[in-house]
Amino acid sequence: MSTTNPYLIPSRSAKRAHHDAESINPILDEALFCTISYAVDNQPFSLPTSFVRYEDKIYIHGSVGSHFIREIEKGIPVCITVMLADDLVVAKSAFSHSVNYRSVVIFAKAEKVEDYQTKYDAFKWLTEKIVPGSWDYLRPMTEKEVRKTTALAFSLSEASAKVRSGMPKDEEEDKPLPIWSGLIPLQTRRMPVIADDLSIDIPVPPHLQI
Amino acid sequence: MSTTNPYLIPSRSAKRAHHDAESINPILDEALFCTISYAVDNQPFSLPTSFVRYEDKIYIHGSVGSHFIREIEKGIPVCITVMLADDLVVAKSAFSHSVNYRSVVIFAKAEKVEDYQTKYDAFKWLTEKIVPGSWDYLRPMTEKEVRKTTALAFSLSEASAKVRSGMPKDEEEDKPLPIWSGLIPLQTRRMPVIADDLSIDIPVPPHLQI
Repeated sequence: MSTTNPYLIPSRSAKRAHHDAESINPILDEALFCTISYAVDNQPFSLPTSFVRYEDKIYIHGSVGSHFIREIEKGIPVCITVMLADDLVVAKSAFSHSVNYRSVVIFAKAEKVEDYQTKYDAFKWLTEKIVPGSWDYLRPMTEKEVRKTTALAFSLSEASAKVRSGMPKDEEEDKPLPIWSGLIPLQTRRMPVIADDLSIDIPVPPHLQI
Repeated sequence: MSTTNPYLIPSRSAKRAHHDAESINPILDEALFCTISYAVDNQPFSLPTSFVRYEDKIYIHGSVGSHFIREIEKGIPVCITVMLADDLVVAKSAFSHSVNYRSVVIFAKAEKVEDYQTKYDAFKWLTEKIVPGSWDYLRPMTEKEVRKTTALAFSLSEASAKVRSGMPKDEEEDKPLPIWSGLIPLQTRRMPVIADDLSIDIPVPPHLQI
């Protein structure tokens, strides 16, 4: 999550659905985690997981034996949500409080990635998203590891983004009140790394230094 | 989200489901947002929203006219997930990468809060969770505002927590490799407030100062 730039905040808040890749992709590329839901006999199940976007699809992975993966790899309908919270929106009344966020909702069915190279690439894209610059530094992924892991792709053709930004929308009669209103920006950041005992004498590679 | 205290990290990672309030409640009380899923004809729908726990229930709110609220207030089965990401777990191989997280999954059916005082209290609990210390400072909530808003409660009787903590679990043959492994802690924090134009000359109250 990045803090909304206060200089870019419009004077009125805005919230509407966007269906274009220019709105959707930056949210998917910034968020590390999504929540995937599916239903069996109208009983919903959902699970947070990491994901990566590549071109017009997102990819998740899981163990070949995972119950969740085995259910959704059947190609049943899923709903995937992603949310980045930018600011708490503090109004003069509790009723007008809100949150500035950027979210994406995707309706799709899983496509199981069967092609070996695409599957390998999906793991590479995911690893590079979570820890940029790390793939070539790590012990190379083996064929056995690729085969033990399922990769699922989801089309973004039924995706939409929603964004709320800007200041509170207080009621007209509340605006003159001497009560403070504005934003509490939220910031998520990566902190300096902590070495495992196994790696205490190994230099921290440049891609992990901040 | 708080950073995992490196001094408390056990030498081996642990991941299992916990069903006790002592495991579940601190996660629910730290997280500001959850994702709620429901299904109609096995088509899942999900939505991120703010929530608050009070005793053995969580509460959400929404506009009386919201489609989402009107669906789930019928009392159909929902699945609610909450996730706090603490660390990216960087192993010596991509395959052993992981995430340290604390998550809760709740299976429940909405109970519509009809009692006026409980509904009022739910809005107070929610406001005080998002902006601690603010309720008595704000313009008081009106009866009309309470009536325009739906509050839904969900029992925690079918809730479970899952936690992964600690260092990577590299394969035995990878452990001697001269590749750095460890944690990238993630931290989410509230930044200094940004005043609305309406409030530029109003002192920031103590509960909003950091």
